Amino acid sequence: MKTLVLVLDLAGTFVFALAGATAGARRQLDIFGVLVLAFAAACAGGIARDVLIGATPPAAITDWRFLATSAVAGIIAFRWHAAIERMENPVRMFDAAGLALFAVAGTQKALAYELNPVMAALFGMLTGIGGGVARDLLLAQIPLVLRADLYAVAALAGATVVVLGDQFGAPPLPAALCGAAFCFVLRAMAIKRGWQLPKAFQQPRGGAGERKDVQKDARL
Amino acid sequence: MKTLVLVLDLAGTFVFALAGATAGARRQLDIFGVLVLAFAAACAGGIARDVLIGATPPAAITDWRFLATSAVAGIIAFRWHAAIERMENPVRMFDAAGLALFAVAGTQKALAYELNPVMAALFGMLTGIGGGVARDLLLAQIPLVLRADLYAVAALAGATVVVLGDQFGAPPLPAALCGAAFCFVLRAMAIKRGWQLPKAFQQPRGGAGERKDVQKDARL
Amino acid sequence: MKTLVLVLDLAGTFVFALAGATAGARRQLDIFGVLVLAFAAACAGGIARDVLIGATPPAAITDWRFLATSAVAGIIAFRWHAAIERMENPVRMFDAAGLALFAVAGTQKALAYELNPVMAALFGMLTGIGGGVARDLLLAQIPLVLRADLYAVAALAGATVVVLGDQFGAPPLPAALCGAAFCFVLRAMAIKRGWQLPKAFQQPRGGAGERKDVQKDARL
Repeated sequence: MKTLVLVLDLAGTFVFALAGATAGARRQLDIFGVLVLAFAAACAGGIARDVLIGATPPAAITDWRFLATSAVAGIIAFRWHAAIERMENPVRMFDAAGLALFAVAGTQKALAYELNPVMAALFGMLTGIGGGVARDLLLAQIPLVLRADLYAVAALAGATVVVLGDQFGAPPLPAALCGAAFCFVLRAMAIKRGWQLPKAFQQPRGGAGERKDVQKDARL
Repeated sequence: MKTLVLVLDLAGTFVFALAGATAGARRQLDIFGVLVLAFAAACAGGIARDVLIGATPPAAITDWRFLATSAVAGIIAFRWHAAIERMENPVRMFDAAGLALFAVAGTQKALAYELNPVMAALFGMLTGIGGGVARDLLLAQIPLVLRADLYAVAALAGATVVVLGDQFGAPPLPAALCGAAFCFVLRAMAIKRGWQLPKAFQQPRGGAGERKDVQKDARL
Repeated sequence: MKTLVLVLDLAGTFVFALAGATAGARRQLDIFGVLVLAFAAACAGGIARDVLIGATPPAAITDWRFLATSAVAGIIAFRWHAAIERMENPVRMFDAAGLALFAVAGTQKALAYELNPVMAALFGMLTGIGGGVARDLLLAQIPLVLRADLYAVAALAGATVVVLGDQFGAPPLPAALCGAAFCFVLRAMAIKRGWQLPKAFQQPRGGAGERKDVQKDARL
């Protein structure tokens, strides 16, 4: 199970670092800023998970392979970010794959630390979305994760599959593959079909009251 | 004392989650984003406190009641946020109550971990204002706490009362009630009367020098 | 070695708190917000380092001298920030000195906790730049560190000198002085000469393709 977690983690690290570094390159950060963003996007979720469950120092920091993987992805994105952006759809699919891998790996690790099932699923989600939150905060934006089509929900769904598998005694590898596949398909469908969760801005009452509320919302 | 901390913490969690979720709903986040913001606003202060004093995993994460309380508040705010915002003043009073409860509960916990008195008071303040800081950072804003009328100061004042009570051997419950009342009244008065701390932008010298400084400030 | 780390840390704390408080005062925060920003700018790097290596509670929180130093610097900056800003160049030099002191002190501490050499150098860099990142995040800006002339690179260079000295058995004090001097000179030269790392926005292909990419970048 340890090898499984590591391989999933490194693969997720690569695609997330690629996405983070591309976002940094687009904002014209210098090569060092791009590398920092690659590392933050790839490892912030795992670092937050490890700090919160008390597994310090975090694996992403003690294990040089995470740093090396992010650095390679960062340099690739720095050199070829224009080409990467031109392939908008592949990038989003890679990002969905990274999300699936991280959500599953984070859940496995939380289970290995004997957290209770609900919390293990939430830690899987945190591992999946944490990197994206860190990336957007460093770029002074409202995290996309809080707005995008089924992003965090897909991570949570994949993590839940892993937790259920663990509860019912399924072997870890198939459970992880099922969870990752479920998360990936959910996210990919959401991108393709534009699935969205309901937004808050639906007034409880219709009619004339609405316009006033809109103004109030804009003012506050 | 443990039960006291828990009850104060859960009550504070509810009102802060309400405030955080309302802010998220106003920005048109989807239901999941609203729930995340509810949890972050309610629990970030306590999580930061627990991580810093080494009490990992943090109570807000291992204890399902915090998650459940935030989720309920988040759903309420998602459904009725327009109604909540219409009652602007009640919301600010609730928020002041949450601040008072968290500041007191955070101080109690820091004292239970045998931190020195000055640090216990500061941890109380951190617990009180941390959620608001996390909420505003996730919405890409300068934290209101750093600008608002006596917000952090009220938290610090309430925490100080608890610390003083502990130093002079007062029983914890009355000390906590006094501290919370002091914090709440201070904050409520600041809202009503518009009390503010002095702002930095008062030039040390008057006259012609001022205008130049303004321009310089705007440019930098 | 412990005294050395402490003296470097306190000196760095003072100059970083001064820089953070000045930035807060310029944004018209109130006195409390300015003090919070002074503390965050001065101590966030060290706190992040200590939380990540598991040295909780962090020294910046248990040791009152860090708090007192930040508070004094914050009050000075609140009162005389206009005068401080008029001396733009001295401030940047002070900031470079703080960066050098923190990078070296952070590396020493990481080595004392027996981290491996590469990680110790990165922790030195994190200690140096963490405060600036926290300051800019609290002011809802993209961290300057990710964009400025050789800022993080200078911190990493200074930290590397300390690590190399440790590896080759050099006595800690001269190694620390060399590392700090190297970092300071590198950063000072970068400011004077406008040295920059390459930016990402160099298209892999020239010609007509470029304009389209610019538009795409603006849209994304």
